Amino acid sequence: MKPKEFNAERTRLTELALDKANLNVKRFYSFDHAAYAEAALSARTKELLGLVASLVLRCDDCIRYHLGQCKALQISDAELQETFAIALLVGGSIVIPHHRRAIEYWEALKEEV
Amino acid sequence: MKPKEFNAERTRLTELALDKANLNVKRFYSFDHAAYAEAALSARTKELLGLVASLVLRCDDCIRYHLGQCKALQISDAELQETFAIALLVGGSIVIPHHRRAIEYWEALKEEV
Amino acid sequence: MKPKEFNAERTRLTELALDKANLNVKRFYSFDHAAYAEAALSARTKELLGLVASLVLRCDDCIRYHLGQCKALQISDAELQETFAIALLVGGSIVIPHHRRAIEYWEALKEEV
Amino acid sequence: MKPKEFNAERTRLTELALDKANLNVKRFYSFDHAAYAEAALSARTKELLGLVASLVLRCDDCIRYHLGQCKALQISDAELQETFAIALLVGGSIVIPHHRRAIEYWEALKEEV
Amino acid sequence: MKPKEFNAERTRLTELALDKANLNVKRFYSFDHAAYAEAALSARTKELLGLVASLVLRCDDCIRYHLGQCKALQISDAELQETFAIALLVGGSIVIPHHRRAIEYWEALKEEV
Amino acid sequence: MKPKEFNAERTRLTELALDKANLNVKRFYSFDHAAYAEAALSARTKELLGLVASLVLRCDDCIRYHLGQCKALQISDAELQETFAIALLVGGSIVIPHHRRAIEYWEALKEEV
Repeated sequence: MKPKEFNAERTRLTELALDKANLNVKRFYSFDHAAYAEAALSARTKELLGLVASLVLRCDDCIRYHLGQCKALQISDAELQETFAIALLVGGSIVIPHHRRAIEYWEALKEEV
Repeated sequence: MKPKEFNAERTRLTELALDKANLNVKRFYSFDHAAYAEAALSARTKELLGLVASLVLRCDDCIRYHLGQCKALQISDAELQETFAIALLVGGSIVIPHHRRAIEYWEALKEEV
Repeated sequence: MKPKEFNAERTRLTELALDKANLNVKRFYSFDHAAYAEAALSARTKELLGLVASLVLRCDDCIRYHLGQCKALQISDAELQETFAIALLVGGSIVIPHHRRAIEYWEALKEEV
Repeated sequence: MKPKEFNAERTRLTELALDKANLNVKRFYSFDHAAYAEAALSARTKELLGLVASLVLRCDDCIRYHLGQCKALQISDAELQETFAIALLVGGSIVIPHHRRAIEYWEALKEEV
Repeated sequence: MKPKEFNAERTRLTELALDKANLNVKRFYSFDHAAYAEAALSARTKELLGLVASLVLRCDDCIRYHLGQCKALQISDAELQETFAIALLVGGSIVIPHHRRAIEYWEALKEEV
Repeated sequence: MKPKEFNAERTRLTELALDKANLNVKRFYSFDHAAYAEAALSARTKELLGLVASLVLRCDDCIRYHLGQCKALQISDAELQETFAIALLVGGSIVIPHHRRAIEYWEALKEEV
């Protein structure tokens, strides 16, 4: 999936979900943004934390979202590879299919710029 | 995915799986039906239990199936939203992509009728 | 584990965790309370939703907490059994050890009153 | 935990759980026994399947139960080690604490005989 | 998804992932191959162990890969059904959608030969 | 559990597990060490990645191990809190019991020095 299409679809569905959401659902979605803001830890480190959590929990959409943020924050290929290695180690070979798709998406992100 | 297509594909694959199944697999599939029957808990409550379990375990097909049952049992939007809020809370933001797709499917279910 | 001991330990650790918590962690803990309040769904149904989610995600502490709430809300043995059956079905036999401990805790809750 | 104590506690809680169980819960527990019976696959292979599933889903009680069955079926140390290697690979380093405890329990099983 | 297409896509993405991989990621991928080699346990048994782990962890790509290996090693329909029954039992009904797709893929594998 | 006791028990079981391990299991354990070495990412960042993965996968032993490493690398309370907030957000309230125990262990680590 191309980053542009992924982002457009993600935005479309998020808007639909928030349009229908009750207060608690809305609060949860807004909480999602607050936790990644730069503070004692840099925004770069926090995106890597979000990425590794998404990898071991094996959620392609979450992985793609964090990869997009990592690109915007200029995470290097080497930094990403080390994050992948930890995710594969902790989460096991069941993470491999998500890792393969993550690499493809990351390359697409680099080409898009 | 449209509800009609989802249901047709689900039926096709279930028939194939049962056609090939051994006795233990068949027993498991039949057990799946028994647990949701109205008893001390209403069928409506049981479908919400199945839905919240499917959400926190993050299975889109299971979510769609239970949303279809919820529609048939006239679960309201408000009841559904509160179930979603609990699923997001317990299961975390990793549930969000499934929540977004669940909302889209629910809206499609409402249009279909 | 006896309900009184469980509750005392849970309270002690929650107070410690909140004493050390930053704003986002505190917000998450408070969100945890909001989602179970009576609204379009009854508080009873919501506790069963929390219970089934805790069972399929296999968290003994969460199960015990929701069993305590279920007791306070006068959930019957029959209602509980049907919730257990759905959790076992959806989550599989890997839930059985948690189910066994849940039953023991539930019986202890009934004796305590 | 010593195998004798584990088995006694497991039996005690299973009896309690079944004593309180409704029909669907009882059916689920009985289904649990049927799936491991010798058929096209040997009982030995089936116990290893149950063990590897328990390891990657990280359930100590389930692991101990299957190790006990493996001992009764004279699974060798070498066969067990290869099963552990697959479980560690597929499930990742998050399985390591369970692996450590499994080894200790296995050694206790060998001493008990 | 047809086996040929699945394998081609899997090969393409694996090559891309390894082309970009750092040393630790490469080591993890190579470890993945070593664990399934014939030794104290037969390659056939090891593929079934990999399959049941993939089923309970609910990874369609991993399931398809192991089904392909099972076909090459002449696992019978009956052996496969017993493996599925254990996976459904241990992992629960949340495994059913993956089971349905696995059956379809297995039938496609048989037609392809 | 006190850090000293945890570490002693962890060392004892690791030595037992490695004493009994076959080559593939040994390789997996050694891989576990390699992935956390300082490289393009700092050792501090890598420990936080290991910690957040352990939190969302809910493994108390893994959490304690990484907290010990974080202490040795002088991770601050504020950095830890932000890591906890991301883990709670991504993993959901099912992480809360592990968070509570993590806080207690962290405080014990600080007192021990």
